[in-house]
Amino acid sequence: MNVMTHQAPDLRIGALHDLYAAGTTPDTVIAAVYARIAEVGDPGIFIALRDRAEVVAEAMALPPFDPEAYPLWGVPFAVKDNIDVEGLPTTAACPAFAYEPAEDAFVVARLRAAGALVIGKTNLDQFATGLVGMRSPYAVPFNAVDPEIVPGGSSSGSAVAVAQGIVSFALGTDTAGSGRVPAALNNIVGFKPSLGLLSATGMVPACRTLDTISIFSAGVADGWRALQVAAGYDAADAYSRDLPAPALDTRETLTVAIPDAASAKFFDDTLQAEAFAAATARLMDMGVTVEEIDLTPFYDVAQMLYSGAWVAERKAAMEDIMAVEPDVVHPVTRAIVSAADRLTAVDAFRGFYRLADLRRAVQPVLERYDMLIVPTVPTFYTRADLEADPVEPNSRFGTYTNFVNLLDMCGLAVPTRPRSDGRPGSLTLLAASGRDGLLAALAARIETDAAVTPGNGLAIPMPLPLPTCARNETVIAAVG
Amino acid sequence: MNVMTHQAPDLRIGALHDLYAAGTTPDTVIAAVYARIAEVGDPGIFIALRDRAEVVAEAMALPPFDPEAYPLWGVPFAVKDNIDVEGLPTTAACPAFAYEPAEDAFVVARLRAAGALVIGKTNLDQFATGLVGMRSPYAVPFNAVDPEIVPGGSSSGSAVAVAQGIVSFALGTDTAGSGRVPAALNNIVGFKPSLGLLSATGMVPACRTLDTISIFSAGVADGWRALQVAAGYDAADAYSRDLPAPALDTRETLTVAIPDAASAKFFDDTLQAEAFAAATARLMDMGVTVEEIDLTPFYDVAQMLYSGAWVAERKAAMEDIMAVEPDVVHPVTRAIVSAADRLTAVDAFRGFYRLADLRRAVQPVLERYDMLIVPTVPTFYTRADLEADPVEPNSRFGTYTNFVNLLDMCGLAVPTRPRSDGRPGSLTLLAASGRDGLLAALAARIETDAAVTPGNGLAIPMPLPLPTCARNETVIAAVG
Repeated sequence: MNVMTHQAPDLRIGALHDLYAAGTTPDTVIAAVYARIAEVGDPGIFIALRDRAEVVAEAMALPPFDPEAYPLWGVPFAVKDNIDVEGLPTTAACPAFAYEPAEDAFVVARLRAAGALVIGKTNLDQFATGLVGMRSPYAVPFNAVDPEIVPGGSSSGSAVAVAQGIVSFALGTDTAGSGRVPAALNNIVGFKPSLGLLSATGMVPACRTLDTISIFSAGVADGWRALQVAAGYDAADAYSRDLPAPALDTRETLTVAIPDAASAKFFDDTLQAEAFAAATARLMDMGVTVEEIDLTPFYDVAQMLYSGAWVAERKAAMEDIMAVEPDVVHPVTRAIVSAADRLTAVDAFRGFYRLADLRRAVQPVLERYDMLIVPTVPTFYTRADLEADPVEPNSRFGTYTNFVNLLDMCGLAVPTRPRSDGRPGSLTLLAASGRDGLLAALAARIETDAAVTPGNGLAIPMPLPLPTCARNETVIAAVG
Repeated sequence: MNVMTHQAPDLRIGALHDLYAAGTTPDTVIAAVYARIAEVGDPGIFIALRDRAEVVAEAMALPPFDPEAYPLWGVPFAVKDNIDVEGLPTTAACPAFAYEPAEDAFVVARLRAAGALVIGKTNLDQFATGLVGMRSPYAVPFNAVDPEIVPGGSSSGSAVAVAQGIVSFALGTDTAGSGRVPAALNNIVGFKPSLGLLSATGMVPACRTLDTISIFSAGVADGWRALQVAAGYDAADAYSRDLPAPALDTRETLTVAIPDAASAKFFDDTLQAEAFAAATARLMDMGVTVEEIDLTPFYDVAQMLYSGAWVAERKAAMEDIMAVEPDVVHPVTRAIVSAADRLTAVDAFRGFYRLADLRRAVQPVLERYDMLIVPTVPTFYTRADLEADPVEPNSRFGTYTNFVNLLDMCGLAVPTRPRSDGRPGSLTLLAASGRDGLLAALAARIETDAAVTPGNGLAIPMPLPLPTCARNETVIAAVG
């Protein structure tokens, strides 16, 4: 691997569309994508790669270039391998579980209908259980920024594919932070949309009541465009919600909460604490009102995810294969999920009651602030750290992510200026369901202010700016 | 007992307030209430009766009569004994479970603050588990209409107290139909409000995610007034919802669904089928558009209540006492709740997934119609029937009620013209959450059209009409 020395093709959607408008044909772009895959040379990123000729044929069969009608025309993307793509097996990183889907997942179908091109299926922590990217029977992908650091998970391959400049965007999934932690570790953007905004039809569930498909991109604009295309009500998915189409909310006056010093957790990583302080100071410089809150009630919610009843959802999703071939399940995953064996239906209801009480307790905070802003990860862990202890560092990675889906919040991880040791900085913006456009608007301002080149700093040019009023969008007047 | 031969005091709220306005003092009314209790002479109605002198003292300490400021001034009511009233034990019809509440339930406090007077705590199917009123260690109350028929439950005592003209209204609870079945069997009105509209603080849970306090009254107007006073957001109850205050919705054009002949169930009770057909024919005469639908998907939902995971909620509520003193629990109740012993947390989540799918399946029906109208009960059962088989008749009583709370619908049972054999007729109006005022408006029209004297036909005068725009109400323009 020699990932730091080559310049990748410019796959930012705006840049690609400029190329197409100037006469470049998709086969040229696809050739560059496959060249980049070869150049990166990491066998851990993709579980299945589409035949290049097949992608070219599909691209050449697209209707004439028209970015208004086809906002993702000729845009290459990758799909986490727990989401169905017709013609490729879905493995969830468990080969014995693999099946051949009869059709694309609802979201994949929408993206392809808008002109996007599937390149392949990406690696993950098996059954999307993990935040490290190390829990796969396939080769573990290398972090795009620093190969010693874990790639992050569970959407490891999707995040690395974007950070390495292989695809314009990639689909992940997010139940406990799988769409945000790998974004932070690979210095890219990770959207965790409001629950129900993106259909889960054709996605292997982790915790069906908490899951969402997520989107990785180099910059906010590309993720936002993919989100707008992917979002849509799906009557066939009982957890899909008929939410308004995502629209940018560029209100001028913002009051945000951040964890206070007593409740922020960095596990003695002072550089990470400094980076968070620096990033929030820049927020204030941008005119955002920042207030400190006690994050303890949010940690109480996070506790419910693995100590409460929700681990039974993971078991429900894996029960068939666990019953027949338990050995094919990753041993760490098996240990986590087996905790569900002791849980009764009474425990499940007690969990819901406690969650309802905790939701009520944090409600005033959620109502008082436009959003909550946290570090995406509290610190970094290396592959060696995880080989020594596969559980505790994984749990710590979830410090600022585990409570989010239980509280029905949307989230967006965005790169900020690197730490003093060069490791990537990342903030996660969190808000009540439906405020995706509020997060996107502020994340775009943060991105512009930070002026960080995504990924490893060599593969991808700086993000293009987010149009303040793009197609299908309405600028919402300030209401806060 | 000699319940059919005496005339009770006129406790309709409007009539009472006319008396008070003319100078009658509450002690006179309270004297009549206690005289009526003695006259009815049914030891099964109340588990605890307040000392008459205490009620009189409380009434005489009320601020001066002002029905605008105190819409329930001097109005006597009863409280099901799974709802807290300060100074009286809460038993849930399980003496070993009894505790002395430190304060009134949230709803009771609101009613009392509006001038209402608690008379006593009423009998119920133990832990609100049952629809028959026969599952109590206390004396079973007699049905007010026909002492051979079961009183209905679980809110047996509250329904009978209203139907016997003892109180103006009574609080029940409703998880599976406990606020509707006894209303039908005693020929009165039963409101099952939208979930979360009435706080459950100070109520012994049956299924905490499905429970609501309910209201029995002789006519729609009195129940509606009590509902308006009782409704209010309670931050301390995690299942309370910040819904708009209930407001009458008197839209002119109504399209309602009723079960078609193939899916309606009457268990060979042709008189009940005829009564339902006659009642729906009158609806059409009133200008309501009536369309038949297949009720099967709703029965599928109902199945979840006892065969799905929700029985574990009942176990959660009773677990402490079941662990220490299982014998104090009614044997039928114990058998029902013990089904939860076999249920795992995985079963619970599978139940939620199935319910989510079923909810999605009925959603188009709920969207297409203003409401769904069903018989409140499919047939009648006698005390002897229940002594012979304590389970199956109980299950049948829930035919048209069990699915309602699982679907987050509000409901209202209203008397219709009696069957040809003199047994009471009853329709239940059902609609999506928040449409309580739509149900009340149509129920008032049905009540006026039917001109039925409530209860046993002797104890209570005909209902007073529902004001189309009373205090705290806004007439909502037709939107459907």
